[in-house]
Amino acid sequence: MVDTAPRADERVLKQASPARASSKPAVNAAAGPKLDVDLVAKMLLGSFPEVRLEAREIAKDPQFHRVEGLSLDEQRERTLEQMKLQAERGFQLRAFPKRLGGFEDAGGNLAGFQELVTADPSLQIKGGVQWGLFAAAILHLGTAEHHDRFLPGAISLEVPGAFAMTETGHGSDVAAIGTTATYDPATEEFVVNTPFRAAWKDYLGNAAKHATAATVFAQLITDGVNHGVHCFYVPIRDAATGEFLPGIGGEDDGHKGGLNGVDNGRLHFDQVRIPRTNLLNRYGDVAADGTYTSSIDSPGRRFFTMLGTLVQGRVSLDGSTTIASALGLFIALTYASQRRQFASATPGVEHVLLDYQRHQRRLLPRLAQTYAQYFSHDVLLRAFDDVFSGRADTDENRQNLETLAAALKPLSTWHALDTLQEAREACGGSGFLAENRLTGLRADLDIYVTFEGDNNVLLQLVGKRLLTDFASQFKGATKSDLAKFAAGQVAGKAYNEGGIRRVGQNLSDLAGVGHSIEALKDRDTQRALLQDRVDTMVAAIGSELNKVRTASPAEQAAAFNAHQDELIEAARAWGELQQWQAFTDALEKVEDAGTRKVLGWLHSLFTFTLFERHLAWYLIHGRISARRGQAVTSYIHRLLERLRPHTLDLIGAFGFAPEQVRAPIASGAEGLRQDEAMAYYANLRESGLAPVDEKAAKKKPH
Amino acid sequence: MVDTAPRADERVLKQASPARASSKPAVNAAAGPKLDVDLVAKMLLGSFPEVRLEAREIAKDPQFHRVEGLSLDEQRERTLEQMKLQAERGFQLRAFPKRLGGFEDAGGNLAGFQELVTADPSLQIKGGVQWGLFAAAILHLGTAEHHDRFLPGAISLEVPGAFAMTETGHGSDVAAIGTTATYDPATEEFVVNTPFRAAWKDYLGNAAKHATAATVFAQLITDGVNHGVHCFYVPIRDAATGEFLPGIGGEDDGHKGGLNGVDNGRLHFDQVRIPRTNLLNRYGDVAADGTYTSSIDSPGRRFFTMLGTLVQGRVSLDGSTTIASALGLFIALTYASQRRQFASATPGVEHVLLDYQRHQRRLLPRLAQTYAQYFSHDVLLRAFDDVFSGRADTDENRQNLETLAAALKPLSTWHALDTLQEAREACGGSGFLAENRLTGLRADLDIYVTFEGDNNVLLQLVGKRLLTDFASQFKGATKSDLAKFAAGQVAGKAYNEGGIRRVGQNLSDLAGVGHSIEALKDRDTQRALLQDRVDTMVAAIGSELNKVRTASPAEQAAAFNAHQDELIEAARAWGELQQWQAFTDALEKVEDAGTRKVLGWLHSLFTFTLFERHLAWYLIHGRISARRGQAVTSYIHRLLERLRPHTLDLIGAFGFAPEQVRAPIASGAEGLRQDEAMAYYANLRESGLAPVDEKAAKKKPH
Repeated sequence: MVDTAPRADERVLKQASPARASSKPAVNAAAGPKLDVDLVAKMLLGSFPEVRLEAREIAKDPQFHRVEGLSLDEQRERTLEQMKLQAERGFQLRAFPKRLGGFEDAGGNLAGFQELVTADPSLQIKGGVQWGLFAAAILHLGTAEHHDRFLPGAISLEVPGAFAMTETGHGSDVAAIGTTATYDPATEEFVVNTPFRAAWKDYLGNAAKHATAATVFAQLITDGVNHGVHCFYVPIRDAATGEFLPGIGGEDDGHKGGLNGVDNGRLHFDQVRIPRTNLLNRYGDVAADGTYTSSIDSPGRRFFTMLGTLVQGRVSLDGSTTIASALGLFIALTYASQRRQFASATPGVEHVLLDYQRHQRRLLPRLAQTYAQYFSHDVLLRAFDDVFSGRADTDENRQNLETLAAALKPLSTWHALDTLQEAREACGGSGFLAENRLTGLRADLDIYVTFEGDNNVLLQLVGKRLLTDFASQFKGATKSDLAKFAAGQVAGKAYNEGGIRRVGQNLSDLAGVGHSIEALKDRDTQRALLQDRVDTMVAAIGSELNKVRTASPAEQAAAFNAHQDELIEAARAWGELQQWQAFTDALEKVEDAGTRKVLGWLHSLFTFTLFERHLAWYLIHGRISARRGQAVTSYIHRLLERLRPHTLDLIGAFGFAPEQVRAPIASGAEGLRQDEAMAYYANLRESGLAPVDEKAAKKKPH
Repeated sequence: MVDTAPRADERVLKQASPARASSKPAVNAAAGPKLDVDLVAKMLLGSFPEVRLEAREIAKDPQFHRVEGLSLDEQRERTLEQMKLQAERGFQLRAFPKRLGGFEDAGGNLAGFQELVTADPSLQIKGGVQWGLFAAAILHLGTAEHHDRFLPGAISLEVPGAFAMTETGHGSDVAAIGTTATYDPATEEFVVNTPFRAAWKDYLGNAAKHATAATVFAQLITDGVNHGVHCFYVPIRDAATGEFLPGIGGEDDGHKGGLNGVDNGRLHFDQVRIPRTNLLNRYGDVAADGTYTSSIDSPGRRFFTMLGTLVQGRVSLDGSTTIASALGLFIALTYASQRRQFASATPGVEHVLLDYQRHQRRLLPRLAQTYAQYFSHDVLLRAFDDVFSGRADTDENRQNLETLAAALKPLSTWHALDTLQEAREACGGSGFLAENRLTGLRADLDIYVTFEGDNNVLLQLVGKRLLTDFASQFKGATKSDLAKFAAGQVAGKAYNEGGIRRVGQNLSDLAGVGHSIEALKDRDTQRALLQDRVDTMVAAIGSELNKVRTASPAEQAAAFNAHQDELIEAARAWGELQQWQAFTDALEKVEDAGTRKVLGWLHSLFTFTLFERHLAWYLIHGRISARRGQAVTSYIHRLLERLRPHTLDLIGAFGFAPEQVRAPIASGAEGLRQDEAMAYYANLRESGLAPVDEKAAKKKPH
């Protein structure tokens, strides 16, 4: 509230045309360090900059934009038409084999796909179903013969497809699906069947209307043995008439909370016969005589290997939702830098929203988190590309990739919903208008937190991996060793590495926020604190579970359940550590001093927001003293003040073009309105015709 | 995960018809204490039970239900038709004067209005605009002559009206709106004018299409003096043609994130002349010669008195969103008690979602919060009725009412969004289907957090009131007295009343959760902890602000801004205390032992969730020891286990009829599907035709 005169950066925005204003905000005129916007924009573009820039051209094209007010049918048809346009441009080819016209560029493909979120999430997801699930299942689970037979139609969209894995009764627990594919050696066919209502395939994109084929997951049964879930290529509709083929039925899922350009629906199969060779047989095959063979001996590992090929969905969502969060913040922070409310100490001038501490508090920590995600996503995307390009396709790399994706996807998808909602509220009533896009984006992204792996289930997977790693570290350890771990005395290497003990001490000889916070600003200490929290939490749970390792399955399950919530929190902590590490690594590469300074503040804001969120834990476990704990929040407030003049630079580095933003409130229009109002009152005062306030009038002698 | 056999209560649900199942779930068969569902249902009905039961009949009538998939125009017309049906039934009469056919039942009116949220929030809000804002402004700001002239048309809906307060450039800061109404003594008219774009009225319900008149807020200027914001009755459209009257223009706000049955729009006025007597003159009048008079001398107090009549909107939203939260939880918890996922230790039986600790953790604390809100809302509604019935209409009561409404409305509206979202995620993909209502309710209620007073602005108002009360307590106190407060040494009476000091001690001689949590279970201690937190926070801020009380306005403003976030948190803490107190008072009146026990656990869950949320504060300020702090979460987990068997009883007490619920996943259909699937596998096993698992097959000698 101190500086109420419009800042130079806001003036520029106000005087700019809408198109100009919603592009990169101009350089910041504040004194002190300055962010190099172009440099940071380049950092945020990540490892596949050309692909992203190319994809943004599609995202900017009005043909691909979401239109409000269409009926359900119109939305679905428009989205299909948009996909055809994409296909004509060859946008979808990137991931596919060169011999089929593709580029074999797995990472680049996902980078481009993510950028579509600013055009229309429905387009992104319907395309994702077609090329990232249906065609990708053929690519990854099928073999060369399947590629030749099925991929061209899937790629060209001649054959719109559904990815029929989820059932009404089974989502996250894919291994337990009810659909069966029983081999009949007499005809050399599989018989695909839905045995009961809960085994109907459900929520499948493209299934309600457009799909003429589907990659169907079913229990493969041959010779009286169930070999577990495999994937089959099943034609489902007559392409000419759009009618279901014999034995196939379905239902429309109807309206959804968002993504209504995608026609989700249900499918069921009544003894539907398909050729034996429609089994996508990369990891398991059935010979003409019914003999089952697989290159992977363990049914469990085989199942997870097949499902592992689906990790790209999670990787994509991590990147897409990060871009959507950035867009929401771009809109809300641009508006906050122009919108005025409540009189300031300067007569005739009202405060800009962004000068309110609360407003900063609501938006800037979310900006810091979004930055962290840009960097951690790039780490994830590179890990994905390493494996899927074949350059570093080892079991260990695959497992690490899956764990990282399972940790980051929940954090970034939840962050998007939270951020878009806060952005909407920060824009008040105008945030609720569809034209300003925040509500629509949020509605469309809502499902991202439960599809491609429910967030809680994914975090539990990460937690289990952490427990496994923990256990393998201590094979042969005594119970007493483990108990010590649980007590947090020797919890992790980090705690003993010197940094944290110091921070935990209540240094009563130090006065003021500045001193007491100093130790927490050291990046090695930060890393140690974050790492130690993960280690200690996992050790505590591991030790508890260890107590029942010889108990009955039911007792073991009960013990696990009694720590489920903590385990998921531990997994979240691990994910936060990955984000922190990626942000730190990116920051440490920056050479420009001003950029290093400003990004350093943003990094601190991210880190201290984590400390504040988990402060009770750090206090209880003696890792941060009460005195330092109190200083955490004060320091966050100081960082908000420091970052406030750099806000427009920070959102400018996202590199959004006006055609990607498209929200009238982020166009500069609000600034023009505020200028007009201030000019009106200034003129009125000068004219001498302004009415006197009653209060002032009463003071005058009558 | 221990008990995996279906519970008796679930069996009943499964065997019930959808209609039966989505009504009150049957009594709980668990051993131990039992909730008296009918007794609790009566408690939750609150102070106006007959009105609520009557309103639920309207809410159950399909004519009033939201229909998916209508176009914008169709939704708007349908909602208008629904209002006409309501008016025919006389539903809207309750609040109005007896001489105009009403009942003068202010509290009952709001109770009935709230129940409409289960039918369609658009209907609720469009009706709220017509009768709770437009007609209520005539009632509360006008005098008998206005009531005679304008109320009959407003009540009957012959004159659909808009409530034109908010402007594009001014929402929460109503005092600064730009629209003027300048008195012209020559013609004895007011000239209503919009001086610039930011002063357009905006986001007004009914304004885009249906309103033929509006209550317009404008700066009243007469004889060269601005007497501040007053309200004027202004005809805006020709009822026959639907065209704007001369001098009036507007725009459609178009699609919104929700509530699309309400036609929000913009209005502007170009020197529009209205008779002098269209000033709603209860609190300020202009004589024919232009002389201004008012019964309230201070312009500030007059302004707040006029705005104070609008408190009923906030009261309504507190109740409505509490019902919506309850409905969301009813749907998600019913589904969670039927839906199964992942194998249990019992072969052939999968876990019910509600048996997972994480699932309980996600939903049950929100159920506890919702219960607290039912009780605190009833306190608020009675306070409202006391004032607006005239029984206890004093300045102090009005102020207390406004403060309570300003504290509770933010908490309950945010809670609704949070709860509906968690409920949606807890139902996975089916939660995203529009037919299951969670996404639609959330979208419609989104705007509740920023309209009728932005939540952050309202909490700041509460915070200012707390600061004023704090300051008045210490008039004449020295700076050193205040500094002591800030240091938390003598922060509030509570801290010295014995209870808390004990809790803060690190009682290392006590082992186990049971002992260390005992002190926190005492209700006087609980109250003291919650109260002390408010007192200490307010004292700390007050003391800081006191340091600058002789500084310049700009410095004072800067100091205030530096504590804005803390002040809002203090206000939230005060609101939580009010909810806690209301829940406690309600609980202490219960005589039935089983109900007292179960509701007591729910009360504890609410309280410990508050302690956990603010645990860092309690630890930093030495109010809860580290040891007890750790036990807080463990105790929450224990409460979840205790409450789990009573979940269906607790949601049954909400008293929702199937016609209010209408979500297929809460109809019992999921239970039937699960039964069918289990029966299928059981039969298959018995038949001897079941395929063998590959793993088992491999063990057999070939």
